Amino acid sequence: MVAAGNEGGSAVVTPDSKMQAGPATTGVTARLSQYVADARYEDLPASVRKEAVRTILNYVGGAVGGSNQEAVELAVAALGPLSGPPQAALFGRCERFDLMNAAFVNGVSSHVHDYDDTHLKTVIHPGSPVISAAMALAEYRPINGKDFLSALVVGIEVALRLGNSVYPNHYDRGWHITGTCGVLGAAAAAGKILSLSRQQLTWAFGLAASTPVGLRESFGSMNKSFNPGKAASDGIFAALLAARNFTSSEAMIEAKRGWANTLSTKQDYNEITGELGVRFETALNTYKPFACGIVLHPAIDAAIQLRNENALQADQISRIELRVHPLVLELTGKRTPMTGLEGKFSVYHAVAVALIQGMAGPKQFTDRAVQEPAAMALRANVFPTVDTAIREEQVDMTIVLKDDRRLNKFIRHAVGSIEVPMTDRALEIKFADLADGILPREQARRLIDACWGVEALADAADIVRLSAQA
Amino acid sequence: MVAAGNEGGSAVVTPDSKMQAGPATTGVTARLSQYVADARYEDLPASVRKEAVRTILNYVGGAVGGSNQEAVELAVAALGPLSGPPQAALFGRCERFDLMNAAFVNGVSSHVHDYDDTHLKTVIHPGSPVISAAMALAEYRPINGKDFLSALVVGIEVALRLGNSVYPNHYDRGWHITGTCGVLGAAAAAGKILSLSRQQLTWAFGLAASTPVGLRESFGSMNKSFNPGKAASDGIFAALLAARNFTSSEAMIEAKRGWANTLSTKQDYNEITGELGVRFETALNTYKPFACGIVLHPAIDAAIQLRNENALQADQISRIELRVHPLVLELTGKRTPMTGLEGKFSVYHAVAVALIQGMAGPKQFTDRAVQEPAAMALRANVFPTVDTAIREEQVDMTIVLKDDRRLNKFIRHAVGSIEVPMTDRALEIKFADLADGILPREQARRLIDACWGVEALADAADIVRLSAQA
Repeated sequence: MVAAGNEGGSAVVTPDSKMQAGPATTGVTARLSQYVADARYEDLPASVRKEAVRTILNYVGGAVGGSNQEAVELAVAALGPLSGPPQAALFGRCERFDLMNAAFVNGVSSHVHDYDDTHLKTVIHPGSPVISAAMALAEYRPINGKDFLSALVVGIEVALRLGNSVYPNHYDRGWHITGTCGVLGAAAAAGKILSLSRQQLTWAFGLAASTPVGLRESFGSMNKSFNPGKAASDGIFAALLAARNFTSSEAMIEAKRGWANTLSTKQDYNEITGELGVRFETALNTYKPFACGIVLHPAIDAAIQLRNENALQADQISRIELRVHPLVLELTGKRTPMTGLEGKFSVYHAVAVALIQGMAGPKQFTDRAVQEPAAMALRANVFPTVDTAIREEQVDMTIVLKDDRRLNKFIRHAVGSIEVPMTDRALEIKFADLADGILPREQARRLIDACWGVEALADAADIVRLSAQA
Repeated sequence: MVAAGNEGGSAVVTPDSKMQAGPATTGVTARLSQYVADARYEDLPASVRKEAVRTILNYVGGAVGGSNQEAVELAVAALGPLSGPPQAALFGRCERFDLMNAAFVNGVSSHVHDYDDTHLKTVIHPGSPVISAAMALAEYRPINGKDFLSALVVGIEVALRLGNSVYPNHYDRGWHITGTCGVLGAAAAAGKILSLSRQQLTWAFGLAASTPVGLRESFGSMNKSFNPGKAASDGIFAALLAARNFTSSEAMIEAKRGWANTLSTKQDYNEITGELGVRFETALNTYKPFACGIVLHPAIDAAIQLRNENALQADQISRIELRVHPLVLELTGKRTPMTGLEGKFSVYHAVAVALIQGMAGPKQFTDRAVQEPAAMALRANVFPTVDTAIREEQVDMTIVLKDDRRLNKFIRHAVGSIEVPMTDRALEIKFADLADGILPREQARRLIDACWGVEALADAADIVRLSAQA
């Protein structure tokens, strides 16, 4: 009814036709809008609520931890002179910006360490665009913690379901899928907090779909964290205009010259509208335990487990032997990294620093960390060999001690995977490490507690206010 | 050297390699950045300067004339509470917004009547995104008229050359090309006004290319004029970040997973870098004389010419016979339009109102205009017939008078085409008609003079200040 051949004019969807279960290619935007409009906290399964809370905790730690990075400093300097009223706090900082500029900066902060959450089916990082938008709105339009959590879940569902519908073709073509899907997720969360009607949500989706953000060529530059930040900001922009009845198409997602057809050669609309409110992609969110590419995670996991189980000291170690998947040496084969960024592409450094410090967060991938003598000495004794029998999520590590003992660990699924998720405790440790040096320890502790207790908050914006510097 | 296979990191272009004339697929972004950095008013051919001045006049009239439309009112209401310092005026209005929000609103105003300029080779409307960005910046960073004109030309060149490189595939796929190319043009003009270095312009292009705006499914809703407005705003955003050395790729336009490959199946990079500073697409800009689809322009042109040459009154006319291209009846065959918008799709109304009023501007396509008794009576006597020998830019009109005289006019190229451009005088009449009812006549006159005299202005922002309501 609305999709094909709709040139030169917005589609007209009659009230009767738009909600019925027609072919999956029609009414997609309308059905998604209805879902967002109707969503209630009370209808969320406990497992989804729990994962959403973990997503918030992981996001807030990341946004605080990234808040002093150069990309964030530059963005704050550029936007400060233009920013409107101090409507929303910047995580980990003392400035307050208007809604859109604050959402942008927080989006950059939360993604800049490449250390945020990941929906593994689509490689979307949903927290950065969606929570950055929702949190800015929460300061502007007060909302309790339960409703905030519900708004967050609908935003994440929209982003991930759109991702499922076009992945992998859309990503393969060159889109940074976190920004292109994230902007619609941000619009959904913002629209929910603003109590938009079904019709207004449809227009918000139309406007947000008109501003897909991010190309993969940005990877390796500040432009990468620009993408989720801009998606957050543009999602708010779309929702604010739609709230005034600024119109768009009725079918922007599925129309012939709409979002899915223009940005992808694959469109599986059942992934968007199937089992809405029943199947939750939010429950599949995962969190990075280590601040580097996922290909290194099994080796780091093995190193930390062996270290902790045996109370290992670096000077006990003679050599470290690893059997790894071929991609490990292909992507992270740098023997003598000179910078922190190069350290993220060195299995030698990653294993050595993990054995010495028992961690592999941003502090283990600084310029100083890769030039630290103990790490340099130990990494010379790391000997990876490719074994095609080892899968990408696996590693087989043997540490030979100077007293000739041999310690072995086989990792079937690295920590942080769906199969071996980070524990709540591990998420807290990650958070505290990120906040260290930015927020006082006591403030970080209260912030962790506020995130865990979000559903009990009368005002969800307590979280972002607790995250700011005095 | 830089384009293919550049995954997971920004391309590295060495100073030696980046400027040499290599294969057309490499160094595109770098060469375009160098062109913008080096461009000077003194190097512009007189014909290009003249067309750029005409582009400004046409833009300003459009932005004033659209400033009271509903889409603009809604945008101002939505963004007012978020806007930062009053850095830039809104054409035709009394509010002042921060740079980005002002550029957005002016972009909407200047496009909302579908009555702006057109680069016919690509159907890009370059003025709306590029001038909206440049004019906002001109208030913030004072610039004389000559340098302003030069910044405008580089912005328009960037937008149109990018358009040439990907048209028609990019447009056919579904992109609203005015926004997807316009955002890079806006970044170029803004970057030039901000005196960005070659390197900073490269990053500005990278960031702007990360925010392509607009899908064709938006046509027919307010979302259509949202697109050039957002492109203007996002172009400024990219330039402001790049001015602080917020980094991006060195090769975003041409890289494997960059702009052209991700957004189009056709990439002709010679269209971007060929004859830079020698061949000017700006010289090919055209202006709509009538506020409706171009398919109706030959018929309206014939009607107005016959009316004026014969001092015709409606009550002298017995019938109007037209031989038209098949598209005329296919697209504009509505016999009894009920709204102004429907009037734009009615050859009957367009011919009738043009004969009665001698014009076909926005005022001739209002709800009131299509319900006006004289127009309704005359349109019943309009008889178009399809003739496949008539080309799209042609019409053959015969008016039969009640005294049996027959008046004939064959239009080979309608006014507003490349072959029969609107005269300066016609552009002034269009401007005055658009400004009528919004600005006092005397102010509109001074504004027209300021546009014609832009090259003599010590401060180019005099134009936008003269365009605002007291």
